[in-house]
Amino acid sequence: MTSSQDAAYMARAVKLAEHGRYTTDPNPHVGCVLVKDGKIIAEGRTQRAGFAHAEVDALSKTDNARGATAYVTLEPCSHFGKTGPCSDALTAAGVSRVVVAMPDPNPLVAGRGLQKLREAGIEVLVGVLEQEAAKLNQGFFKRMQQGLPWIRSKLAMSLDGRTALASGESQWITSANARQDVQLWRAASSAIVTGIDTVLYDDPQLNARVDFDAVQPVKVVLDSQLRMPLSVRLLENAVDVWIITCSDDVLKTQTLRDVGCKVFQVDALNGRADLPQVFKLLAELQINTVLIEAGATLNGALLDSGLVDEWLIYMAPCILGDEGRGLFHLPGLRTMADKKQLKLLEVRQVGPDLRLTFNSRI
Amino acid sequence: MTSSQDAAYMARAVKLAEHGRYTTDPNPHVGCVLVKDGKIIAEGRTQRAGFAHAEVDALSKTDNARGATAYVTLEPCSHFGKTGPCSDALTAAGVSRVVVAMPDPNPLVAGRGLQKLREAGIEVLVGVLEQEAAKLNQGFFKRMQQGLPWIRSKLAMSLDGRTALASGESQWITSANARQDVQLWRAASSAIVTGIDTVLYDDPQLNARVDFDAVQPVKVVLDSQLRMPLSVRLLENAVDVWIITCSDDVLKTQTLRDVGCKVFQVDALNGRADLPQVFKLLAELQINTVLIEAGATLNGALLDSGLVDEWLIYMAPCILGDEGRGLFHLPGLRTMADKKQLKLLEVRQVGPDLRLTFNSRI
Repeated sequence: MTSSQDAAYMARAVKLAEHGRYTTDPNPHVGCVLVKDGKIIAEGRTQRAGFAHAEVDALSKTDNARGATAYVTLEPCSHFGKTGPCSDALTAAGVSRVVVAMPDPNPLVAGRGLQKLREAGIEVLVGVLEQEAAKLNQGFFKRMQQGLPWIRSKLAMSLDGRTALASGESQWITSANARQDVQLWRAASSAIVTGIDTVLYDDPQLNARVDFDAVQPVKVVLDSQLRMPLSVRLLENAVDVWIITCSDDVLKTQTLRDVGCKVFQVDALNGRADLPQVFKLLAELQINTVLIEAGATLNGALLDSGLVDEWLIYMAPCILGDEGRGLFHLPGLRTMADKKQLKLLEVRQVGPDLRLTFNSRI
Repeated sequence: MTSSQDAAYMARAVKLAEHGRYTTDPNPHVGCVLVKDGKIIAEGRTQRAGFAHAEVDALSKTDNARGATAYVTLEPCSHFGKTGPCSDALTAAGVSRVVVAMPDPNPLVAGRGLQKLREAGIEVLVGVLEQEAAKLNQGFFKRMQQGLPWIRSKLAMSLDGRTALASGESQWITSANARQDVQLWRAASSAIVTGIDTVLYDDPQLNARVDFDAVQPVKVVLDSQLRMPLSVRLLENAVDVWIITCSDDVLKTQTLRDVGCKVFQVDALNGRADLPQVFKLLAELQINTVLIEAGATLNGALLDSGLVDEWLIYMAPCILGDEGRGLFHLPGLRTMADKKQLKLLEVRQVGPDLRLTFNSRI
């Protein structure tokens, strides 16, 4: 039975987990609290990939967890990865009760960690603050369950829905506050995805410019014809640049690999990279969360595909006029019945701008 | 000196005034509270034009106001209009103290009512909840002070800034909730202003469809060439339809007058009605508050003119694509430095849509 105390300790574990938001990728960020005699004796959270999971991190901070209750935001793992199984570590430390927010999202292993604990005579409770815990790692969970990353597309527009002037000039529509907010989303993403047109036009860096420790996202360019030039800023550190193409041009592919890029092939669909294949590939490459920063053509195709989980739209309080460039190129939209319906999830003020969050599901 | 009691009674008077929001036009809506021995003995508010002002309304509800304090949201009038001067009525009733939120906004008469009261030996205090009182009658105050109405433009758009499909189809982008909210703004306006193109294309009624007592707004059509056909729904009750034109076509003018319209001439500027002249004319015709419901051309010209006090933008969570029609036609906008900057004042959810309020001043 869940007590209010169980919920309170789990809330603390959720808080601890959140601290790993920028660093644990591709692992989920997990929090753990050890409680004995009504007092927290140790706290832990997932470290960078290859280092301690939350449970082991917490256990390392106490020399006597015997008889304690462990609160963990995710089912303890039962397998050997880069580190040993956490369920074994909890058992060995003599923990007598384990409270878990949610089971492992991977349907192939869900419940095994809990089963191991129960077999070791430990009392197990599952489902405390499950919704809160699920939000912590949307990308990891979606990848485990659906073989796709969490897909978020970020757009910046004027109040009248323009991303640039007719000339293409777009710097800057939104405020410095909004642009810094975008850096946080980049830092929290496994990959930034853009189209080759954006690379050619804006020459973006697509790195996360933040003043705290963060795993840098991989930069993914959809470049169906391999038009990527070697002179762009993105290739100054090409080791984190992945190019997804439909071209089988061996020479161009090798040139890009020589400067450090990874090049992947997917099928073409209407002359463009097949989007479901692109994201399936990224999930296979352990990408949990994708941030798309692209133009009207790719965003129109994404909107049509229904693949995007979250639209993040920064709206500046300015007007660029009806000759400016639009957000979504949707050549097939002919009647009001065809309009694309989204659902508003959140409105937030960021400096003078608004940040609007929508999802695609009604 | 203002006491917290004075503020509390004035807050009540402000509440009473608000009840007149839809009915007192072209008079300001005013509230009045009479207090004696620490108790409210009567309350009043402005009635329809030609009937009692707030002070007289309150005095009519008590037979002994001798020695009372009157709280009024606006300086009592000192002149004979359709009703007698309120300052005289307060004096005759033996009120001993008058607390006023703000002086009369008309610089030609401001202070006269207060002076008359002081000359009658009544204690007068001015400035209690002045800001709150000023918000009650923005239109009336602006008309008195600047000779212009309060100008509000309402637009409805998709998330990507489109007011219609390329074909012109626009019914409906926003929800029934949002469209009902617009009816309230219509009811609170002295006039609805639109362009002849909107009349020709959408054939709107432009009346306030509300289920409470409201003075219907005048419908104003900017029709520089007198293209108005007689068959439109707007002319089914043409007595409240004003046409503002640059044309001196006597025959067309007479035809429109014959069906009940009023026709006014203003100068042309670049082939269109000169906007400052239009609004000055409307103020002279006792229009306090204008709601503009127009297309991209008129709204672009209005944005350029800087005449609009408030932009009211309903944003539906749907996408119409980059071939849809824009909000503002701004052919002169060439560089980012030319972008029109607004200031966000309010965000409100209306059903599934957002209502965003901006002003033009930075």
